[in-house]
Amino acid sequence: MSIRIGILGYGNLGRGVECAVAANEDMELAAVFTRRDPSALKIATAGVPVVSVNEAEAWKDKIDVMILCGGSATDLPVQGPKYAKLFNIIDSFDTHARIPEHYAAVDKAAKESGHIGIISVGWDPGLFSLARVYSNAILPQGRDYTFWGRGVSQGHSDAIRRIKGVKDARQYTVPVPAALEAVRAGKNPELTTRQKHTRECFVVLEEGADAAYVENEIKTMPNYFADYDTTVTFISEEELQANHRGLPHGGSVIRTGTTGHAQENKHVIEFKLDLDSNPEFTTSVLIAYARAAYRLAKEGQTGCRTVLDIAPAYLCAQSGEELRAHLL
Amino acid sequence: MSIRIGILGYGNLGRGVECAVAANEDMELAAVFTRRDPSALKIATAGVPVVSVNEAEAWKDKIDVMILCGGSATDLPVQGPKYAKLFNIIDSFDTHARIPEHYAAVDKAAKESGHIGIISVGWDPGLFSLARVYSNAILPQGRDYTFWGRGVSQGHSDAIRRIKGVKDARQYTVPVPAALEAVRAGKNPELTTRQKHTRECFVVLEEGADAAYVENEIKTMPNYFADYDTTVTFISEEELQANHRGLPHGGSVIRTGTTGHAQENKHVIEFKLDLDSNPEFTTSVLIAYARAAYRLAKEGQTGCRTVLDIAPAYLCAQSGEELRAHLL
Repeated sequence: MSIRIGILGYGNLGRGVECAVAANEDMELAAVFTRRDPSALKIATAGVPVVSVNEAEAWKDKIDVMILCGGSATDLPVQGPKYAKLFNIIDSFDTHARIPEHYAAVDKAAKESGHIGIISVGWDPGLFSLARVYSNAILPQGRDYTFWGRGVSQGHSDAIRRIKGVKDARQYTVPVPAALEAVRAGKNPELTTRQKHTRECFVVLEEGADAAYVENEIKTMPNYFADYDTTVTFISEEELQANHRGLPHGGSVIRTGTTGHAQENKHVIEFKLDLDSNPEFTTSVLIAYARAAYRLAKEGQTGCRTVLDIAPAYLCAQSGEELRAHLL
Repeated sequence: MSIRIGILGYGNLGRGVECAVAANEDMELAAVFTRRDPSALKIATAGVPVVSVNEAEAWKDKIDVMILCGGSATDLPVQGPKYAKLFNIIDSFDTHARIPEHYAAVDKAAKESGHIGIISVGWDPGLFSLARVYSNAILPQGRDYTFWGRGVSQGHSDAIRRIKGVKDARQYTVPVPAALEAVRAGKNPELTTRQKHTRECFVVLEEGADAAYVENEIKTMPNYFADYDTTVTFISEEELQANHRGLPHGGSVIRTGTTGHAQENKHVIEFKLDLDSNPEFTTSVLIAYARAAYRLAKEGQTGCRTVLDIAPAYLCAQSGEELRAHLL
């Protein structure tokens, strides 16, 4: 029997989950839940019902795992505990500082209702967290580095779009090659924010907008740009559509450490991603953890989990015997 | 209370475990077990008893986890099931084809005696297996590549040493840069054995040995060298000691895959190691899994496990709360 997946929210992530379900033979898409008028939403998969979120409770026994595809700022803190009362859930909550609080809320709801909730799934947090935890456990004497990019930061692109005179924008986060090289060579550099990443902005102006004003607003924006070497390039709307439509991303988690009685031997562990589509890759991770949630729930486990709490074998469709014979 | 570690076998791996225990504050080295005369063995840590393997049973309740540091060919198939009757054990069994059989034997012994045995721990099998399993679960449409090196292959070095006229030798396995580049670029190349790795041999001849004969014996040796582009360099014993004394190794596990309704988006996942000391890094992994074995045993779990069966959080000294707050 297939694992019946529900999608809650049909934006970039929701559409990615839809693709990922189709790529996994042991899963099927049961329904897409939306806050919009369901009759106005057309989804890519034929024959799958689109349902109002208000009717979600009626689907309690028809969905094995509900994937929450909302945003971390306002959607997930509410949706996590709310839907963990009805379903096993997966989310991609990525506000690092608020994870303990979100974990507690989902844990309480999931335990009371007898469900599993796996939060903060994706690549950072998610796969990058795994890389940090494995490499810290193995090399207790060492140092962690995370580089993001080259990739589109949606938060930074949005911040530019809010400036008066900006019609559209795309911001790329780019690791500084010399910094990356020094880390990979095991030189353990101290790196400032500015030394680790640069920011490239491609901006479409509204007619009659003041380019100098926009450039200055971007480069001096606190938190987002002021601490970085930022370049601003003004382009036409056509050029943005032609060359900057995708949402690529990636990056590296690197831990360098030492072993030996005199700490004389250096080691470098690197986990690296190079992704054409950030949302489609993220949702591929969500779907692998949906399989784990399904299995944990079958075992009668309840409560909140993160990627750190889940044995890798739970993510795979293959049996333990098959994994030991072919992938170990 | 510290986790009390026993070492069985004091070669490269045993000495590495000794270092790794010292680097982890929640562990202590309880004893070293040897098949040699214990009085003839001097270990690096002061005050730790060296004991004959024949007396291991008397240490049943004084060791939390026994690390088996023997070889995979003849030692571990016997030692795994034998010592799993007395202790929680960790081994680095690396004969991929015989893992299912070794798993079954350790599982039986560990279940009957109420212990945990974690087998095939290290980096390949081990961390490389984890990389394969995570990336296969996430990108079901894709392709796996493993590159080893640049590093010393002890098996290949030993094979050269068995040739008549060879006094000493060091063999480096080297990934072919163009192959690695093509894979990282997502080109999905079909690669023959010869296209993936080259083999560099540094050989010290015995006096009066026939260099041409030795070179030919190496280059035509089936399985080990015949399928590779192999270079043989004759050096002096002094040069070998000066430049080839270490045991560096490393490599990359890469999975390239696609997502999207038309598989139009490419993704590359790479896990890469660059290690000054293969044995010291391997034993750092063993010790992290010793912590997991200790915790699983405390929970009352029994039987055989591999790295695929163990949640990452079990490897870390920190609590779940600390991990969620700082490493997730």
